[in-house]
Amino acid sequence: MKVLWNEHIVDRDQVKLDIEDRGYQYGDGIYEVIRVYHGQCYMLEEHMQRLTASAKKIKLALPYDVTLLKEQLKALIAVEKIDNGEVYLQITRGMYSPRNHQFPPVGTVTPVLTANAIPFERPTDMQERGLTATVIPDQRWLHCDIKSLSLLGNLLSLDEAIEKGFDDALLQRDGYFTEASASNVWFVIDGQLYTHPDGPLVLPGITKIKVRALCAELGISLHEEPVAISQLPQIQECFLTNSVWEIVPVVSIDGQMVGAGDRGPITTRLQQAYIDAI
Amino acid sequence: MKVLWNEHIVDRDQVKLDIEDRGYQYGDGIYEVIRVYHGQCYMLEEHMQRLTASAKKIKLALPYDVTLLKEQLKALIAVEKIDNGEVYLQITRGMYSPRNHQFPPVGTVTPVLTANAIPFERPTDMQERGLTATVIPDQRWLHCDIKSLSLLGNLLSLDEAIEKGFDDALLQRDGYFTEASASNVWFVIDGQLYTHPDGPLVLPGITKIKVRALCAELGISLHEEPVAISQLPQIQECFLTNSVWEIVPVVSIDGQMVGAGDRGPITTRLQQAYIDAI
Repeated sequence: MKVLWNEHIVDRDQVKLDIEDRGYQYGDGIYEVIRVYHGQCYMLEEHMQRLTASAKKIKLALPYDVTLLKEQLKALIAVEKIDNGEVYLQITRGMYSPRNHQFPPVGTVTPVLTANAIPFERPTDMQERGLTATVIPDQRWLHCDIKSLSLLGNLLSLDEAIEKGFDDALLQRDGYFTEASASNVWFVIDGQLYTHPDGPLVLPGITKIKVRALCAELGISLHEEPVAISQLPQIQECFLTNSVWEIVPVVSIDGQMVGAGDRGPITTRLQQAYIDAI
Repeated sequence: MKVLWNEHIVDRDQVKLDIEDRGYQYGDGIYEVIRVYHGQCYMLEEHMQRLTASAKKIKLALPYDVTLLKEQLKALIAVEKIDNGEVYLQITRGMYSPRNHQFPPVGTVTPVLTANAIPFERPTDMQERGLTATVIPDQRWLHCDIKSLSLLGNLLSLDEAIEKGFDDALLQRDGYFTEASASNVWFVIDGQLYTHPDGPLVLPGITKIKVRALCAELGISLHEEPVAISQLPQIQECFLTNSVWEIVPVVSIDGQMVGAGDRGPITTRLQQAYIDAI
């Protein structure tokens, strides 16, 4: 398997990471997961914009410019012969010794970029049948808008849901739904669509950008407002979005059916429109 | 430089980390920093207990037993000829491919342990003159009792303080002091000592264990209760504790002197008792 390591595409076992890479010691880095359809990165510009925004928020200088990065990702997909798949890309602040919490002065540290590409097919079964979810407290930090490598909070949320016998967690903070463990979450109430507004409590999803546009096209009323847990009985449909899964219905929440307990009409329309748009 | 890599002490450049080590991709791991005095790990048992507790909280199986780990750390210190210094030790969940947020089933992943040892001398100057601090919101997650590698929240807190011209941050959540960016924080009010109780909002410090014992010995009244930000005008002394710095006074908070603006008497007594106890 070939991977991208800084500017170069190399054999995976040629990559040399240091034990004092700040990504390894602190989760001090950022990432993106980009879907590949027919050998092309989907919404690559938007991913690069978010990567740049995440980098800025943690004062990380990208190791080289986005134009070259896009070319290298395309080259990686080509060399790995990915038709449908995903690219995982991360950038850490790099190696700094001795270990010190303080961000190293600019110029004293070289970021480390790694990326790999794997085949992946649309999870049609999951998109049709949907997932079960449980509501648990959002115990993550207050910088969820940064797509950072410090992800243990997300992992623990998912694990808690799985332990309880559900597929995923719907996170709630101060009585409002924020996100699922690794997806934006959407609700249909009275025929209108709701999702948490962008801000420090949620990741600004790339799929969210697309769903926003599709709502405008399809005439679906979208409100970017938090939904209260107390509104649970009024929820007619619920779905999750992320770049890998696209749009996936949540058919039950804590054992209670959402709507009729299957994929709802607005979810289905958006799924189809999303696929058509690709 | 020799380092500990799993069971073996090897040259640093022999260590081979994988790009899909979950420590690298998710901050999915735990760590300890242990002080070395006169070639011996200080409070090693307590560090091993906390390591074991952190591991349990994230369902990480230690790669081998603590008895062997203690021996290997001693061997590392010997081979690196560390008299006074510190050992940094971390354990990640290991490599799992393809990347998946879900914790891999037990037995399908091998944790990766790395440790290095460096010389370090007591920061006597800082212990005498103290630090300046600023109060900022605690934006970290709600599992601060886990000594995890997902530390970007701590790093951003420290960076925010430094940007504002201070040495460190005192974090506040819901109107109460929790911790500094990488230390427990203590306050003297009316001649009595206060620190936040253990629980999900703070790390159970190893130095805190020792200070607790020293308070009992010295007859200092200790209350493990949160201190409100509104009590700031009553604060006579403030200090931070961590294994590396030991006990360090905070002499001003947001530009206001704490007490007389220098190291206070209770801080001084505890510092001396701490050093005497080593």
